[in-house]
Amino acid sequence: MTPEVRVIGIVGIPEVHPGDDLAALILDAARRQDTLPIDGDVLVVTQKVVSKAEGRVVDVHTIEPSTFARQVAAETGKNARHVEVVLRESRRIVRMDRGVIITETHHGFICANAGVDASNAGGPGLLILLPEDPDRSAEALRVAIEERAGVRVAVVISDTFGRPWREGTDEVAIGVAGLVALKDYAGQRDPYGYELRVTQVAVADELTAAAELVTGKLERIPAALIRGYHFEPGSGSGRDLVRDPDRDLFR
Amino acid sequence: MTPEVRVIGIVGIPEVHPGDDLAALILDAARRQDTLPIDGDVLVVTQKVVSKAEGRVVDVHTIEPSTFARQVAAETGKNARHVEVVLRESRRIVRMDRGVIITETHHGFICANAGVDASNAGGPGLLILLPEDPDRSAEALRVAIEERAGVRVAVVISDTFGRPWREGTDEVAIGVAGLVALKDYAGQRDPYGYELRVTQVAVADELTAAAELVTGKLERIPAALIRGYHFEPGSGSGRDLVRDPDRDLFR
Repeated sequence: MTPEVRVIGIVGIPEVHPGDDLAALILDAARRQDTLPIDGDVLVVTQKVVSKAEGRVVDVHTIEPSTFARQVAAETGKNARHVEVVLRESRRIVRMDRGVIITETHHGFICANAGVDASNAGGPGLLILLPEDPDRSAEALRVAIEERAGVRVAVVISDTFGRPWREGTDEVAIGVAGLVALKDYAGQRDPYGYELRVTQVAVADELTAAAELVTGKLERIPAALIRGYHFEPGSGSGRDLVRDPDRDLFR
Repeated sequence: MTPEVRVIGIVGIPEVHPGDDLAALILDAARRQDTLPIDGDVLVVTQKVVSKAEGRVVDVHTIEPSTFARQVAAETGKNARHVEVVLRESRRIVRMDRGVIITETHHGFICANAGVDASNAGGPGLLILLPEDPDRSAEALRVAIEERAGVRVAVVISDTFGRPWREGTDEVAIGVAGLVALKDYAGQRDPYGYELRVTQVAVADELTAAAELVTGKLERIPAALIRGYHFEPGSGSGRDLVRDPDRDLFR
């Protein structure tokens, strides 16, 4: 049988506001286009609508920048209030150079500006923060979809990160529910009996990259269903994808 | 209309040997499963079969290790002949620590072991090297498919790389033909009029990640068609995805 995976964009999800029932908005939109989730689907949801529904939005005008934030802003050409929000969302600065601030967030993710972003935020001066606990966000969506649609899906919350060495952004999984985030090949052998060099594949990240092919950045499609991918069910976490600092040569 | 992208694995491609006509093998297999490529498809082919067809295979027993290769092998617990091959495929060592050798290949890619790999190589002692010019490999496949099947597809050659900060491997595009590798949003605005923070999306990498959902590592599925993705036609290159050293904070 021909292996095939389908990536289905969910269009028609309205503008999301704090307190909105995101699972309901996603299911309503999926129903309207006749693509309700089925058992075994992976629902990929972009971070921005999750954060909006959870009220993780800050009006930059309400923020008082610290002295350090003002210094960094002057160095990098950024807005001092914006920098202050980035610093508050960070537990460590990984690199600060050439107008770029790479930090480690309180979750442990390493990304530009602690994931704080003004684009697609909903208005001038608004900044969107990452969800407080993206795994919890994913699990809440997973449970809500099981309860309301009667189907068992996995959920991945995606965000757009840059990376060292390579141009362009890539999608990554920051929150995971219902699937194992890393596919483990340890000890398995190739068809020639040779033990595989690759032992762990970041399947949760691959799922977010596949979803981005339909969600895009301007299309107002904040969610996609991935159908036909045989994932390993389990209680994975976005944190499984964060390398232990002791094993990381590039912190 | 519901946006949908299909990722179709091509099964039944036989073991590939030096000199084989890879385009013919792929088309034959696709024909047998009734999924011949159509205009606008992206054909993603894993590096290993491309390298095999191009004869980029080395028998490690024929390699005489240098003094430096022996030293590195002793430090890292690797085979000295294998290390010698890695060094020959590299123009610079980026990091060498804790048993890991990260190098910059002659193409400019930064990856473990210069992309030299023994798994799925075809036999004991065999090492597969990256294609000499993966863009040329991609273009040759693109042209062959246009000539024989009469369809215009884009071709991406994928490989499996690790990355800093995150666990698990990810797929990347090392060769590209017929599409623009980076989708450029520079100057575009979100629905609220705010200029996008993300200006370049590594769509060629996203396509390889989507393909991995069906190709896997053990399934003997070295190629996939991606159908329904509206890429920008053009003469992209795998090198477009390599960050200029001057703009890279992590070399």
